[in-house]
Amino acid sequence: MNGAESLARTLVACGLDTCFANPGTSEMHFVSALDRVAGLRCVLGLAETVVAGCADGYARMAGKPAATLFHCGPGLGNAIANLHNAKRAHAPIVNIVGDHATYHQVYDTPLSFDIEGLARTVSSWVRTSASARTLGADAAAAVQAACRPPGGTATLILPADCAWDEGSEPGAPLAAPVAAAVAPEVVKELARTLRSGLPSMLLLSGAALGERGLRAAQRVAHATGAKLRTPTQVPRMARGRGRVPVDRIPYVVDAALKVLEGTQHLVLVGAKAPVGFFAYPGKPSTLWPKDCTVHELASVEQDLVGALEALADELGAPRQVPVPDAVPQPELHGGPFKPEAFGLTLAALLPENAIVAEDAVTSGRALFPLTWGAAPHDWIQITGGAIGHAFPAATGAAVACPDRKVVCLQADGAGMYSLQALWTQAREKLDIVNVVFANRRYAILQGELAAVGAQPGPASRELFDLSRPEIRWTKLAEGMGVEAVRVETLEAFADVFTSARTRRGPFLIEFLI
Amino acid sequence: MNGAESLARTLVACGLDTCFANPGTSEMHFVSALDRVAGLRCVLGLAETVVAGCADGYARMAGKPAATLFHCGPGLGNAIANLHNAKRAHAPIVNIVGDHATYHQVYDTPLSFDIEGLARTVSSWVRTSASARTLGADAAAAVQAACRPPGGTATLILPADCAWDEGSEPGAPLAAPVAAAVAPEVVKELARTLRSGLPSMLLLSGAALGERGLRAAQRVAHATGAKLRTPTQVPRMARGRGRVPVDRIPYVVDAALKVLEGTQHLVLVGAKAPVGFFAYPGKPSTLWPKDCTVHELASVEQDLVGALEALADELGAPRQVPVPDAVPQPELHGGPFKPEAFGLTLAALLPENAIVAEDAVTSGRALFPLTWGAAPHDWIQITGGAIGHAFPAATGAAVACPDRKVVCLQADGAGMYSLQALWTQAREKLDIVNVVFANRRYAILQGELAAVGAQPGPASRELFDLSRPEIRWTKLAEGMGVEAVRVETLEAFADVFTSARTRRGPFLIEFLI
Repeated sequence: MNGAESLARTLVACGLDTCFANPGTSEMHFVSALDRVAGLRCVLGLAETVVAGCADGYARMAGKPAATLFHCGPGLGNAIANLHNAKRAHAPIVNIVGDHATYHQVYDTPLSFDIEGLARTVSSWVRTSASARTLGADAAAAVQAACRPPGGTATLILPADCAWDEGSEPGAPLAAPVAAAVAPEVVKELARTLRSGLPSMLLLSGAALGERGLRAAQRVAHATGAKLRTPTQVPRMARGRGRVPVDRIPYVVDAALKVLEGTQHLVLVGAKAPVGFFAYPGKPSTLWPKDCTVHELASVEQDLVGALEALADELGAPRQVPVPDAVPQPELHGGPFKPEAFGLTLAALLPENAIVAEDAVTSGRALFPLTWGAAPHDWIQITGGAIGHAFPAATGAAVACPDRKVVCLQADGAGMYSLQALWTQAREKLDIVNVVFANRRYAILQGELAAVGAQPGPASRELFDLSRPEIRWTKLAEGMGVEAVRVETLEAFADVFTSARTRRGPFLIEFLI
Repeated sequence: MNGAESLARTLVACGLDTCFANPGTSEMHFVSALDRVAGLRCVLGLAETVVAGCADGYARMAGKPAATLFHCGPGLGNAIANLHNAKRAHAPIVNIVGDHATYHQVYDTPLSFDIEGLARTVSSWVRTSASARTLGADAAAAVQAACRPPGGTATLILPADCAWDEGSEPGAPLAAPVAAAVAPEVVKELARTLRSGLPSMLLLSGAALGERGLRAAQRVAHATGAKLRTPTQVPRMARGRGRVPVDRIPYVVDAALKVLEGTQHLVLVGAKAPVGFFAYPGKPSTLWPKDCTVHELASVEQDLVGALEALADELGAPRQVPVPDAVPQPELHGGPFKPEAFGLTLAALLPENAIVAEDAVTSGRALFPLTWGAAPHDWIQITGGAIGHAFPAATGAAVACPDRKVVCLQADGAGMYSLQALWTQAREKLDIVNVVFANRRYAILQGELAAVGAQPGPASRELFDLSRPEIRWTKLAEGMGVEAVRVETLEAFADVFTSARTRRGPFLIEFLI
């Protein structure tokens, strides 16, 4: 068999079942192999940022990698932003990037590109296949690398002749690496620290934000009085009624400092020590108090849930502890969009077991605590600051979980980076309600300009305003086969959302705010 | 003054007048400086691939760089594909890429990124500013580097504190580097070679494709019988009635081999020796015959026009030689889209002094010779194989040349990569007629799959088909404020194009083919 077929067969043998793709000429033999090898569902994205964001959303919900297929350096280039979000979420992804035949590369043709250099900026593993014979083994190594805890992007560069040459065979699947356990001494030491009774906080991320991790963290909180927080962005979190409500460290530096004020012991559980998303003149980079000691229970590549459970046991916490239920009560509200009223309305409407993909920027900052009282759901979020994440992440999540409703919360300015995802939603008939917050401006930048003490002038007015011309999201959605409605009040939103909730397939609600 | 203001003032002092931008938080001080410093027109793109393609189109038509403004690594990442096209066109561009404050970078925050590594893949010059005090000089060096013949992308990375710190001053503009002259011995030697009368060909690119270069090349052809050709992609070419018609080396390898067959001397003038755009099993990479000698009159960074004129003089060619006029005659055709009929119809309708931006892929391959008989015009083209170029390149060209009509020829699959450019066209009221060739498939890939001898199967049918759901370009255009009409016949196309030609502002014609 040729290299391309050995590659496809290896991916299937390693348990992959989905390939998000935007192929080009140099990938033809691989596409032809996919025609012959059953087991990989091919999902087309019309721009590579969509393909990458899909793979990220898929990985976060499926808990395993999808393959992607990109065309040479420029194809991978278009994917970099959402691969960066995936990197920050530790989402496992196996990139296949086509390149010129090995012997053709000396000629510096129009598409010649330093793909390895490009791939290294977002990948935890990069390899260029040297021949068809080793391609199967390369693919197995790529899957293993992507799955190495905490998960990352493995990029396999596929020269065209390695795909078309004969004499290859599938690679044997390699053992999936397992997250290392935390040493008992570390657990004992932190139990001693927390027993001191001094004001403490656990900062939770990664797998600690699943239902089991949160329950264990709540046992620790119950036993010690420690507060619980997540970083400003969470890759995936189990939330809703009956689950442990944990708030984020705020994005705004002053608000974050206030949250951490008085903390004497900060315990990291798969999270980094909290720092400002950006630096600002005269404000600190690090957000914990000067007299606070930062500890690490477990780093993100370790067994976070096991570590939390060991800590809870060491502290003698009861197996079952009450979950705080003093959360904002879901309730339908009316009138124009206001963050709080919207959040409570959404909480009232969110269907059981939904997946929420959020990149709502300024419209979404308040949503996190307001929706604790909603039906149980998973929340995935932009993690690397590369906006334009929710449309494709929701798309990938819906591919991973065809039986769950996906609710995509997308800011309008951010949504314009990856609107092509709507076409894939329509193509695959994915069960997604997209909500676009149409404030028709880069509101975050207006806020940031004010934050640096500057007055708006001609340039900033030109660069932050999205109202000239008005973007009509209903037309954009319909142009890509997605039904859409524009609403201007919470009553109308509730009506349309309720109806969209009961039908299947993609839908878009443009909320003029 | 702070660093940001010194940067803005330096760019203006160096002759820049346009900044294509998609800013973020870390660029706020620079945006604020642009509010205070007159002379840089800010043009917003809603995705960075649009910003980069605009800067490319602008540079090719203005003959000088625009500045761009990108937000951190992901922002530059989204721009890589069209910066790659610009690199292959040797278009001068000055990228400003915001980054975290220098002291904040140790914290590996969500947006931390190896921007230098990313920038190197497409830039001829990369520098990270070290302090506000040196920022003005850095900016002047960036402009000089971008303008160094043949032109390239200079990327200046701007840590936020270098922008906001005080104590800076504008950098003094540096001398614009001049293209080096070709040594007289080289010219004399090539004149001897061409006088041999053996079958010869001049392969012309870069500045040789301007009106003066082409006239000089025609003098050489007249004196020696040498044929003239351009590479498969041209960055910019002066064409139309009264100008020297020169055809491209075909994209398809067998057709290219046929064109070069029998050539004994191949003379490169700013072009590379011709090789296949891609490699194919059993076909050669290099396209010239085995017994052909490849010579170089001038490399792309040298004075190509001067070299051609010196060669013509050395050969004793008359100052004025006839321009071949046996070109296809422009004529209105009817019926459904066919490449030849469309090309002749377009040639009949093209307004005087138009700029044509072409990324029409399979629909456009035949257009080049069919439009030789049109009114005089400039033709700019995708040069790096990163499709999705014409929408933004046309947008940038229209910003550079507000008094000229721009005709954008965009394939539908390619157009979906950068459709957001239509919004900028509407925002800036740019005088562009966009023609979208809606064949609703990646037709080039269907051809390439056949070329590798494979039969279409389930995966390739899924990955090459754009008809499920149908993309409605009229809705997409209207959603971004651009009027649009769908046509299905050449008669209707001619009617709508004729009317669009006489109005100002952007318009889109979706040609269902």
